[in-house]
Amino acid sequence: MKVVKFGGSSLASAQQFQKVGKIITDDSDRRIVIVSAPGKRYDDDIKMTDLLISLAKSVTEETYNPRSLQLVMDRYEEIISELNLDKSLVETIRDGLIDLIEEYQQDEDRLMDALKASGENNNAKVMAAYLSSLGMEASYVSPKEAGMVVTNEPGNARILPEAYEKIASLRDREGILVIPGFFGYSKQGHIVTFPRGGSDITGSIIAAGVEADEYENFTDVDSIYSVNPNLVNNPREIKELTYREMRELAYSGFSVFHDEALQPVVSKGVPVCVKNTNHPEAPGTRIVGSRTVNGYPVVGIASDKGFCSINITKYLMNREVGFGRHLLEILEDEHISYEHTPSGIDNMSVIVRENQLENGNEEKILQRIRNELLVDDVQVEKDLAMVMVVGEGMAKTVGIASKATTALMEAGINIKMINQGSSEVSMMFGVDADQVDQAVTSLYHAFF
Amino acid sequence: MKVVKFGGSSLASAQQFQKVGKIITDDSDRRIVIVSAPGKRYDDDIKMTDLLISLAKSVTEETYNPRSLQLVMDRYEEIISELNLDKSLVETIRDGLIDLIEEYQQDEDRLMDALKASGENNNAKVMAAYLSSLGMEASYVSPKEAGMVVTNEPGNARILPEAYEKIASLRDREGILVIPGFFGYSKQGHIVTFPRGGSDITGSIIAAGVEADEYENFTDVDSIYSVNPNLVNNPREIKELTYREMRELAYSGFSVFHDEALQPVVSKGVPVCVKNTNHPEAPGTRIVGSRTVNGYPVVGIASDKGFCSINITKYLMNREVGFGRHLLEILEDEHISYEHTPSGIDNMSVIVRENQLENGNEEKILQRIRNELLVDDVQVEKDLAMVMVVGEGMAKTVGIASKATTALMEAGINIKMINQGSSEVSMMFGVDADQVDQAVTSLYHAFF
Repeated sequence: MKVVKFGGSSLASAQQFQKVGKIITDDSDRRIVIVSAPGKRYDDDIKMTDLLISLAKSVTEETYNPRSLQLVMDRYEEIISELNLDKSLVETIRDGLIDLIEEYQQDEDRLMDALKASGENNNAKVMAAYLSSLGMEASYVSPKEAGMVVTNEPGNARILPEAYEKIASLRDREGILVIPGFFGYSKQGHIVTFPRGGSDITGSIIAAGVEADEYENFTDVDSIYSVNPNLVNNPREIKELTYREMRELAYSGFSVFHDEALQPVVSKGVPVCVKNTNHPEAPGTRIVGSRTVNGYPVVGIASDKGFCSINITKYLMNREVGFGRHLLEILEDEHISYEHTPSGIDNMSVIVRENQLENGNEEKILQRIRNELLVDDVQVEKDLAMVMVVGEGMAKTVGIASKATTALMEAGINIKMINQGSSEVSMMFGVDADQVDQAVTSLYHAFF
Repeated sequence: MKVVKFGGSSLASAQQFQKVGKIITDDSDRRIVIVSAPGKRYDDDIKMTDLLISLAKSVTEETYNPRSLQLVMDRYEEIISELNLDKSLVETIRDGLIDLIEEYQQDEDRLMDALKASGENNNAKVMAAYLSSLGMEASYVSPKEAGMVVTNEPGNARILPEAYEKIASLRDREGILVIPGFFGYSKQGHIVTFPRGGSDITGSIIAAGVEADEYENFTDVDSIYSVNPNLVNNPREIKELTYREMRELAYSGFSVFHDEALQPVVSKGVPVCVKNTNHPEAPGTRIVGSRTVNGYPVVGIASDKGFCSINITKYLMNREVGFGRHLLEILEDEHISYEHTPSGIDNMSVIVRENQLENGNEEKILQRIRNELLVDDVQVEKDLAMVMVVGEGMAKTVGIASKATTALMEAGINIKMINQGSSEVSMMFGVDADQVDQAVTSLYHAFF
């Protein structure tokens, strides 16, 4: 049994619904379908979710009028009409939205959450109707019915452990189940949405809960690529990737979906397959617990800008028990999360995202480091970028570091930092932000 | 004005005293002389300090007899007689030792400290007498008279900040001052010894206190070498080294003197010169605050064995605020100090000295990491060695990493870890302990 999730671009129009219909027809293992809200049909289009956010705001700001609601309804009406579905569905959706507005108009947060969630919810109803119209046995299953019991934190719901028992029983249901992504219900019965990547989270929870053979994640790219396609023409497609390789590649250029969402399937060992709704015959990228390395030791190269390094020196630092702990405590206290902490004998650096030091707290943090740790010097080095070279085959291949550093040298890149060894599957290079694209392409050409 | 310190091997015999006498005569800037206790004259010889420890034990274990004392006196008698000094000095020393034994025989720790300190103390008296016999104006200055006020921790004294004022006034004294190393006096007037490297500590404190132009540290090697001479024949001598280069080279193969001892001179910026008593015309190695890099970007390569790596993995570790701090807290709590903490996205390693995990506390620490941090996995990887490639010129030279990793690859070394970037003057490689000597020699040949 497969759990299949379709993203917003896969459900943006009647034409996209038809592609999805064909995908589901083509494989009888595709038994549970998770849907997002309709996405953009073209570059300047407005996503359903954004229309719903505007609608919710118009209610709380008391500028609500029938036009705000009609903008939302237009999208559904177009899809329903082009798919030749029963027009009564339009009225069901409209009545449902009006009910939500009335129920929650006094509670800004709940209204926002409920209206945002309606984008997925109504799309699931449309999808169930469409699949039925194709002759399949398909039914809409609300998250409540599916067992999606979540914490009561609007916009930041987390699944409750007890949810999994009921979710597991979905295996026993007949036909195709269409479940809206992005939200669950609190114990009190309220609609509560997940954080960013919400439909992926629903799909991952359901796939883990029913112990699916595969979690298929349909989006609008053929596969995950070895490198950001904006940097290299026709980069190598990744056929298979381990969970940990995916995590090490989590920097930009690999944001096909939100990796935090995958925690449930990772913990159950359910393989994930990233596929393209517009090109479903492409094999896509499978993300698995372990894989056989054949050929390339490196699977991908990712990078990200916007880092800085807080560099600290103090004579005899390495003899000072508790120094590193105290430093990390100061950062935690100031709500700074860090990426890496390379250290020498008398020095230690902390790599953090630059935007964390932008609210005028940089001087305060440096002052605390000076005063509490009595350091000889502390400096902030800005405009750094990180490059990750990732692959399960790296640990067992001699000469990876040599190949990488030689490629960077030949491209004239000044390596500011190297961090290798904690992870068996990655090697990190710190470079100047303005050299990072060059660094990535030179590494790509060295390894592929 | 120079402060000149002579180690035990430089003062092991009358012949060595004569070399020291000539060294002091040769440079009128050598105004303050710090002496150790007589060291070994030949490989199987017993150091004065060890004779004194036996003497102290014989007193507390009540096996003391005139023979224990005579073993100590033999060394002084031989030196005094061969230098043709006044025999009354022998009696002064003997009477002094008997007085110490009587004064402290009820207090084991104090007796041990006082007898150990007497090795340096009496040697300073012999040196002052010898320099005077050569016609110089030389006087013995006790640490109390010099102003060496220290904390009252036998075997672990630390200088008190107020000491420096009195020490500074030594500048105004006439002639050559001979001060015993290794101990000071508590405010209560007790003799208290410094930790390991004690005479170096005295020399460094006095040099910083009088703001000497140079602190000369005479030992039995011509210079500090670029690499451990046991690994490479005739390695390159280091002419000049910065304080921070010296610190990064602090791993084995560079233990000419104890770098912790240097803190006072480092903080005052007093240059240190390591020279050879047996070959004083050799220029030695100067250790300075900053230097001009010309020629080689790398100044030295050091290594050390006996490390292990605690490797921790946890899915989404990098999103968990406080993870690193909590881990370091557990280690601090269990009295484990660490060297480095390389980290990936979902993993973190802590490099520690293996002997810290040898008292059966390994399982306890791993259990705490499992229970308190809920990690996916924690493993200890043993038998690691660290190699440091060090040089002020490295940060400004492109291709250092490439050269180093290529040399290691060609030597067939599996690089388990790379840490570069926190310190501008070093790059660290983690390798298997049984490959470390090969790693060091291959790097030496690549850079020199």
